[in-house]
Amino acid sequence: MIERAHHIYRVAQDGGPAHVLESGGEWRALDGELFGGYAAGAPVDPAGLRLLAPVEPSKIVAVGLNYRDHAAEMKKPLPAEPLIFLKPSSAVVGPGAAITLPPGVGRVDYEAELGIVIGRRASRVAASAAPAYILGLTCVNDVTARELQKRDVQYTRAKGFDTFAPLGPAVAVGVGGGALDVQAWLNGERRQSSNTRELIFDIGYLVEFVTSVMTLLPGDVISTGTPSGVGPLAAGDRIAVRIPGVGELVNEVVAAHPG
Amino acid sequence: MIERAHHIYRVAQDGGPAHVLESGGEWRALDGELFGGYAAGAPVDPAGLRLLAPVEPSKIVAVGLNYRDHAAEMKKPLPAEPLIFLKPSSAVVGPGAAITLPPGVGRVDYEAELGIVIGRRASRVAASAAPAYILGLTCVNDVTARELQKRDVQYTRAKGFDTFAPLGPAVAVGVGGGALDVQAWLNGERRQSSNTRELIFDIGYLVEFVTSVMTLLPGDVISTGTPSGVGPLAAGDRIAVRIPGVGELVNEVVAAHPG
Repeated sequence: MIERAHHIYRVAQDGGPAHVLESGGEWRALDGELFGGYAAGAPVDPAGLRLLAPVEPSKIVAVGLNYRDHAAEMKKPLPAEPLIFLKPSSAVVGPGAAITLPPGVGRVDYEAELGIVIGRRASRVAASAAPAYILGLTCVNDVTARELQKRDVQYTRAKGFDTFAPLGPAVAVGVGGGALDVQAWLNGERRQSSNTRELIFDIGYLVEFVTSVMTLLPGDVISTGTPSGVGPLAAGDRIAVRIPGVGELVNEVVAAHPG
Repeated sequence: MIERAHHIYRVAQDGGPAHVLESGGEWRALDGELFGGYAAGAPVDPAGLRLLAPVEPSKIVAVGLNYRDHAAEMKKPLPAEPLIFLKPSSAVVGPGAAITLPPGVGRVDYEAELGIVIGRRASRVAASAAPAYILGLTCVNDVTARELQKRDVQYTRAKGFDTFAPLGPAVAVGVGGGALDVQAWLNGERRQSSNTRELIFDIGYLVEFVTSVMTLLPGDVISTGTPSGVGPLAAGDRIAVRIPGVGELVNEVVAAHPG
């Protein structure tokens, strides 16, 4: 392992995806195993790297109403326990990929979130032990068809469309999650802005809660909820989830092909 | 491919899981690719085979309230569209495996269901084209912590505990899904009994609906909903999902280890 903070990117290459490390502006190949031991290898030229989602989660466990300001915005009482739901792995796209607006579903919203990337198989993990099970942090856009969310009650359809789970651009390793700014920028304007200090349930508690229900596997992601300021996307928009120290996840919005 | 109806089992072997075909009481190795072309290979002695869940789904898309009688039992109106939710792959267990009752969650119910096993990557598939995307059918027990389901509103926790998605015992290939008896047997007593003729949304429609939202991958499962007669499980129970022509999925119920 590497002692100092670094970012792990996953990139497309001939012969299959590979991981690349960035630390202090230096880019190097990842030698070893992402979920085992790894070290910085040969230097890599960052120019022209095509970034993929940094991990391939078997599942994304997302949390509703985990910022005090967002709960107020949605006119909902503060939850006594985390409200969890699943986004399917088929919804994952990487940085730079398109978010496709499905036909006929009405308003589709961005939701900027901090994601926890699991590094080791995790079952019944106490909050105090959670750091040992976390590889690092990433940005998540919990894209949501708002009208379907209300109509269906279950969130699965509204949050489960293909491309509705942008992840990335990297896994930030060695960055504390307790006081991070979490922002959404729509076409260059800031629309969401809060800090993980405002989380109702913090990272350690979420790992404990989720792993009391289901086993998490390496690469699985817990998305920690979104602050106030969610709003609609339109074709042609450029939406960024920005978490200084973790990264900036930028995606373009496109309309679905008809039929 | 094999022309006549057959069952595909997945079995534990030294060197990793393998698939075995059964047809008319004859057991043979599966030669080729489960999701490509395959043929019957060398004879296999079925004695002592240790069965696993027949596939490893990346996701299970389950449907609520899809039998007229179950909707009445739950005092809910008939849905205008399928109500879908996800069960995580971490909940999957195979035939003969234990269903573990989590501590402190109250009543845990069995729900006998017919599962559709996807054979090809499927996106925006019309109902009429669905058969070409289906490998076969299996039995699913959509185990549910009933009190958490009501309390959380979202079904994720109530239906997402480890061991809450028994699948199997096999994938039945070449069996029509339109008029199958779907039953639950608790300790040898029949508790659920209906027929897929009673489905509000049939197999083809479900494939169309789900793939209009999310891409399904080979091995993914759509669980088609449960009929009336759901009821609680207790440690020591033996619960069977029986779908004549498809198979009988039997699991024992155990209490969680404390702590």
